[in-house]
Amino acid sequence: MFAFHVTHTDGAARRGELRTPHGVVQTPAFMPVGTQGAVKGVTHRDLVACGAEILLGNTYHLYLRPGGDLIARRGGLHRFIGWDRPILTDSGGYQVFSLRGRRTIEEEGARFRSHLDGSLHMLTPEKAADVQAQLGSDIAMVLDECLAYPATEAEARASMERTLRWARRGRDRFLAIRQGRAPEVHATNPGQAQFGIVQGGVFPALRQESARGTVAVGFDAYAIGGLSVGEPVDLMYDIVEETTPLLPADRPRYLMGTGTPLDIVESVARGIDMFDCVLPTRNARNGQLFTSRGKVNIKNARYAEDDGPLDPACGCYTCRHFSRAYLRHLFVAGEINASTLNTLHNLNFYLDTLRAIRESLTFGKFRSVRDELRVRFGSDA
Amino acid sequence: MFAFHVTHTDGAARRGELRTPHGVVQTPAFMPVGTQGAVKGVTHRDLVACGAEILLGNTYHLYLRPGGDLIARRGGLHRFIGWDRPILTDSGGYQVFSLRGRRTIEEEGARFRSHLDGSLHMLTPEKAADVQAQLGSDIAMVLDECLAYPATEAEARASMERTLRWARRGRDRFLAIRQGRAPEVHATNPGQAQFGIVQGGVFPALRQESARGTVAVGFDAYAIGGLSVGEPVDLMYDIVEETTPLLPADRPRYLMGTGTPLDIVESVARGIDMFDCVLPTRNARNGQLFTSRGKVNIKNARYAEDDGPLDPACGCYTCRHFSRAYLRHLFVAGEINASTLNTLHNLNFYLDTLRAIRESLTFGKFRSVRDELRVRFGSDA
Repeated sequence: MFAFHVTHTDGAARRGELRTPHGVVQTPAFMPVGTQGAVKGVTHRDLVACGAEILLGNTYHLYLRPGGDLIARRGGLHRFIGWDRPILTDSGGYQVFSLRGRRTIEEEGARFRSHLDGSLHMLTPEKAADVQAQLGSDIAMVLDECLAYPATEAEARASMERTLRWARRGRDRFLAIRQGRAPEVHATNPGQAQFGIVQGGVFPALRQESARGTVAVGFDAYAIGGLSVGEPVDLMYDIVEETTPLLPADRPRYLMGTGTPLDIVESVARGIDMFDCVLPTRNARNGQLFTSRGKVNIKNARYAEDDGPLDPACGCYTCRHFSRAYLRHLFVAGEINASTLNTLHNLNFYLDTLRAIRESLTFGKFRSVRDELRVRFGSDA
Repeated sequence: MFAFHVTHTDGAARRGELRTPHGVVQTPAFMPVGTQGAVKGVTHRDLVACGAEILLGNTYHLYLRPGGDLIARRGGLHRFIGWDRPILTDSGGYQVFSLRGRRTIEEEGARFRSHLDGSLHMLTPEKAADVQAQLGSDIAMVLDECLAYPATEAEARASMERTLRWARRGRDRFLAIRQGRAPEVHATNPGQAQFGIVQGGVFPALRQESARGTVAVGFDAYAIGGLSVGEPVDLMYDIVEETTPLLPADRPRYLMGTGTPLDIVESVARGIDMFDCVLPTRNARNGQLFTSRGKVNIKNARYAEDDGPLDPACGCYTCRHFSRAYLRHLFVAGEINASTLNTLHNLNFYLDTLRAIRESLTFGKFRSVRDELRVRFGSDA
């Protein structure tokens, strides 16, 4: 049920289609982050209206609350949250590694205390596969170790090698579930695919070794992890550029946790097909809006009497109906609607940007879309 | 531009139509509360989808932020918030009187400190008319004194008499603005109407005196204030029943700040045409939901694995797409969407209830709708 084919290319950039048990995703694709089974501030109908074709769910949060068992009894995450389009789940690793002072990493896995009630848990490559099987996402991610930045080459090597060992264990468990050899796991999506993750920090030789090792394990597709964690943006672009040729051309490539509109177009130019990021949603809740004319900080006093739309070039509900003055008022007054209307717009902007990128790849205009995004977001992204 | 006519009656209950500069409102009507120019948690399109024909705005909040001057420069509240249906604004009095320890009441008006920045302000009957003229609501409310419950008869008399004096001042100012004798006020809705308010606490003789005096001032229509403030519900029904016959039958009657679905149908039975209340919206944010089977506290553990809709009889977006289990998860997880989906449902329930009441008045079935609401909400309302 999982299939990918490229329909157009422009240099390393490609346009394609990803088939999943819950439908087709046009690539390059951006996945809004639905942390706890909901994208903060917007309902599913808004995501559909924005053109979101795939959501990302966070396994760490869903595992702790309401729990993988409960979701499996509901028939899986799609049915539980009422979203019938594709879902990708992360492994839970990133959130666990972010629990500084509340987690230790061992060869077996990551031991951590829940941020909710302090209870002790162990996230292993096998457990990450099990919980995602319960959730029944269309794409599961293997558990990797998320290296902090900066790290020495020795630290990065040790971490990358552990990630490779975990990759083999995670893949074995995934295949055991898929082949019916783990009947104790209540899997809810027989067509689930699993992506491997390339690590190696900012060291090209390690990235190369990681890519080769991960591809050798044999996943359905591959992601690049451990970027957008504080390294200079040019270094990130370089690593993406050096890594994508090492990944199979007939599989989608997913750059995890990235990024600004500029990061996205620059990564597409280097062969990336899938993205996720909290930037459009989190920034929206903080009043930071992306527009065709660049960024807008809606709480700025200059918008208090601005009767124009947030983005005259945007066709979203927010821009069609409300003024900057009203959006500023809602934000300053702390109204829930500020989060809703701002998130709606930012997601629309991101998904419009991805649509423009895809169209440009079809019609040989990728260069002009890339240049425009460089002008809009090059200086302050 | 302001007109009201009754189309059907059943005892004291009436169905009618209220014409305003921004369109027609079917009565009996419920007005969702859009405190700061937004109904918390839901966007205007949801209000339209629920069938809301009129919104209530709070003059106190809008006067302090973003201010009557700014809204007038935007062309009035309708244009500022992007809502083209009717709006009723309160006088600001209720919020000011609720600022215990931050306000003093004098014959001139109510002196208070802003809850936002501690700045000093004076709300007089004239000022309440001025600010509402700036907002340009379709219906403005005169400034009254909101008596606390319980109060002695002497306190209630003094307060009622002051309210009458304020009514004359407020009406004079309103007429001066309407007739162009107050050019310093930037009025934004030439068709604005003004309602008087009957006070008098829980004392029938005072209510009678207040009703006669307020009607003698001569407003476009009349409201009953000072109820739903802690008095026993049967006492409230009695006062409504005794007061409505004292108000002109050819004008709409508005019961301020009420109430539960049962309160509403019981007040319709006693001749009330208009309602507002924060109950459906505030309770929604607290997980308290109104359904055709009675109240549901969605955070209750019993709903954790309940795959059924919140209210099988409801056709709102929430009930058509999501399970109780998911709604409970969103609420427990503190997701913004919990407020949105719950508010959407509760408003839909209230507006459906009002629709059912109106239909029942057309077809001579009011008694059965009233009996049903008594069964659903009689014990725990």
